[in-house]
Amino acid sequence: MDRLNSADIDRLDTDDPLRGFRDRFVLPEGVIYLDGNSLGALPRAVPERVSRMLTDEWGRNLIGGWLKDGWMDKPLALGDRLAGLIGAGPGEVAVVDTTSINLFKLLSAALAMRPDRRVILSNPENFPTDLYMAQGLIEQLGGRHELRLVPETGIAGAIDEDTAVVMLTETNFKSGAVFDMAAVTAAAHAKGALTLWDLAHSAGAFPVDLNACGGDFAVGCSYKYLNAGPGGPAFLFVASRHQADARQPLTGWLGHADPFAFQTDFRPAEGIRRHVCSSPGVIGLVALEAALDVMLDADMHAIRRKSIALGDLFIRLVEQECPDAGFQLISPRAAHETRPWGRGSQVSFAHPDGYAIIQSLIARGVIGDFRDPDVLRFGFTPLYTRFADVWDAVQQLRAVLDADEHRDPTYAVRAAVT
Amino acid sequence: MDRLNSADIDRLDTDDPLRGFRDRFVLPEGVIYLDGNSLGALPRAVPERVSRMLTDEWGRNLIGGWLKDGWMDKPLALGDRLAGLIGAGPGEVAVVDTTSINLFKLLSAALAMRPDRRVILSNPENFPTDLYMAQGLIEQLGGRHELRLVPETGIAGAIDEDTAVVMLTETNFKSGAVFDMAAVTAAAHAKGALTLWDLAHSAGAFPVDLNACGGDFAVGCSYKYLNAGPGGPAFLFVASRHQADARQPLTGWLGHADPFAFQTDFRPAEGIRRHVCSSPGVIGLVALEAALDVMLDADMHAIRRKSIALGDLFIRLVEQECPDAGFQLISPRAAHETRPWGRGSQVSFAHPDGYAIIQSLIARGVIGDFRDPDVLRFGFTPLYTRFADVWDAVQQLRAVLDADEHRDPTYAVRAAVT
Repeated sequence: MDRLNSADIDRLDTDDPLRGFRDRFVLPEGVIYLDGNSLGALPRAVPERVSRMLTDEWGRNLIGGWLKDGWMDKPLALGDRLAGLIGAGPGEVAVVDTTSINLFKLLSAALAMRPDRRVILSNPENFPTDLYMAQGLIEQLGGRHELRLVPETGIAGAIDEDTAVVMLTETNFKSGAVFDMAAVTAAAHAKGALTLWDLAHSAGAFPVDLNACGGDFAVGCSYKYLNAGPGGPAFLFVASRHQADARQPLTGWLGHADPFAFQTDFRPAEGIRRHVCSSPGVIGLVALEAALDVMLDADMHAIRRKSIALGDLFIRLVEQECPDAGFQLISPRAAHETRPWGRGSQVSFAHPDGYAIIQSLIARGVIGDFRDPDVLRFGFTPLYTRFADVWDAVQQLRAVLDADEHRDPTYAVRAAVT
Repeated sequence: MDRLNSADIDRLDTDDPLRGFRDRFVLPEGVIYLDGNSLGALPRAVPERVSRMLTDEWGRNLIGGWLKDGWMDKPLALGDRLAGLIGAGPGEVAVVDTTSINLFKLLSAALAMRPDRRVILSNPENFPTDLYMAQGLIEQLGGRHELRLVPETGIAGAIDEDTAVVMLTETNFKSGAVFDMAAVTAAAHAKGALTLWDLAHSAGAFPVDLNACGGDFAVGCSYKYLNAGPGGPAFLFVASRHQADARQPLTGWLGHADPFAFQTDFRPAEGIRRHVCSSPGVIGLVALEAALDVMLDADMHAIRRKSIALGDLFIRLVEQECPDAGFQLISPRAAHETRPWGRGSQVSFAHPDGYAIIQSLIARGVIGDFRDPDVLRFGFTPLYTRFADVWDAVQQLRAVLDADEHRDPTYAVRAAVT
């Protein structure tokens, strides 16, 4: 393969059909932000939309905002808007609570739908909070269930007649490897098990297609590739065929069939609303609303194509510019434009000096992040990451290594003042 | 008692030591807002503070905001600030999730601490979501517990050796009647039961004194008298003496002893942090932060004194201006400046035409609300409600009745376009 130079990179940006989207985000001068897989950047429209909600809705309409400004409808209205990004239909998604809490709800529902089965199947590489929530639920249910952890490559083969639910994060948070959702779901269904997908690193990163894959339940967050801000509202998905049977224990008043009747006994609403519990946090929801406006203007397949190109370029440039530097690619090398996806929208390398290298990069304005024990993560958000950012990031990486900055004990000080 | 006139009212406002606080809220022209018990008004500082968080923190620091801007610490930092309002100490309060979800956590914890007891004692007048959450939990625990509902006047006498936890909303959402927290807690402890108080209509309305009353667990919301906006973040309290024993099932990663170690097994953090589950919704938290700044500048005992005076005045004026109109006071007539409080910061009347009267009042710009079957609720927020507002509201009420507006079938149309 020919060596790439910066002119090649300029051409990639010039030809990028998504290049206009970067202006719709706030990105600080002098920073190359490759951590949108942890917290997405601020969409320019968010402050204005939030300000309008505060001043024109809350400030002017007070309690009337719940109806006049549609606050009460937002969990389901935003769910319907978000549905298209994850391959769900109308009425299958609600925006509510947090990813972990939604996981608890739907895991409870799934176990209750498979009362004769004992096993929640997951993988040790799963994001820990998902495992912790399962453990909390199992303890509460009296310990008769088992959280069985099987390495991700062995999941499909480990599903058996005792598996109640296969609970997986579609995209591995460390490696960026993506499960074959269609294959795993088919394997689960073949054994009578249900699936619960955590889409934290998938939603907004590539076209998720829950219904085409036969997905049963899913949860996800809005603050990574959906750019709704730190701790932004989460979502949940229940396939319409399960909605009548799916009961969960967090039965708050907004999940009641008739919330304003103020009856003494809970009676679940029809459909997805039974999984909404409490009065929704409107300020966070309107931030998501404005962020979704940006995302929904883009073609998700174009996002996917650019995401693959950015990641491929990053891998190629690291190997070209920093050969023999000790980086080991732990992300799948191959991403696919169609299922199975292979790699999500991040690239991770292992390196024995990983922590120091990331700190040195941050000191130079290149924001990636580090995960124990030795993983450097770099996320690519096609709506605002340019090919030139990838080029510049790798140049900075080479500069760190050339100057041995990561071996300089003051790197932590430099990083802290950045 | 002499008839009051508007000159008397003017004097009350002139002499009000809290009169300066009204300017710190946004209140629309031509509206008399007596519904702060449902949704508090917008503090002027909130839009600026939220905008600063969006633009200067998220926009500039991106992922770095979690540490640089203290986002990660906010659930506990805000808990410590809020603690003084509810009689809690440092490290006893976290701001997190929603009231209902926090209730589920702490009810779970309380039941686990009384494994030989079967009964959750509450009252049928409790806010329904609390009952629904208890029902969801009981069902999940296999039905071996019972939610026993005893009318509020009989609660203390109904506590027995089978009572695991007494779960009450301190201030009744319909009547505004306030439980004697000290007496009920003492009665619970005398039988070995725990208490779980919902402070939704108490926090910010009057000085709550959890530790002085021996309270075990509590939850509450921030969007009523704390003015943090629609669906603002909730809080929970665990008395320090219980913190080592209180385990709850929503065991998310931020409640882990070492969240960033990303271990496979959950190990609860020491102290209150184990009840924090997910990445906090920072936008909502900074709105609360700005709202608390206002509240914490005021003397809570002065708030209480004015609250009583506003409520007393409202009752007196309704009876003076609308005699024989069919209003039946369902709030306690007597409020007390010291415990037991008697009446919270609202006054409710029953009236057979209650719904129509409230709609007619709303059409005239007086915002109260209605609760089935026949209750008109009027809330008083001493930081922004003036004595003149109470006077004017009652004049409007009299005008509605004098003109029989509530019998006019077009009232609903008028109300809808207001």
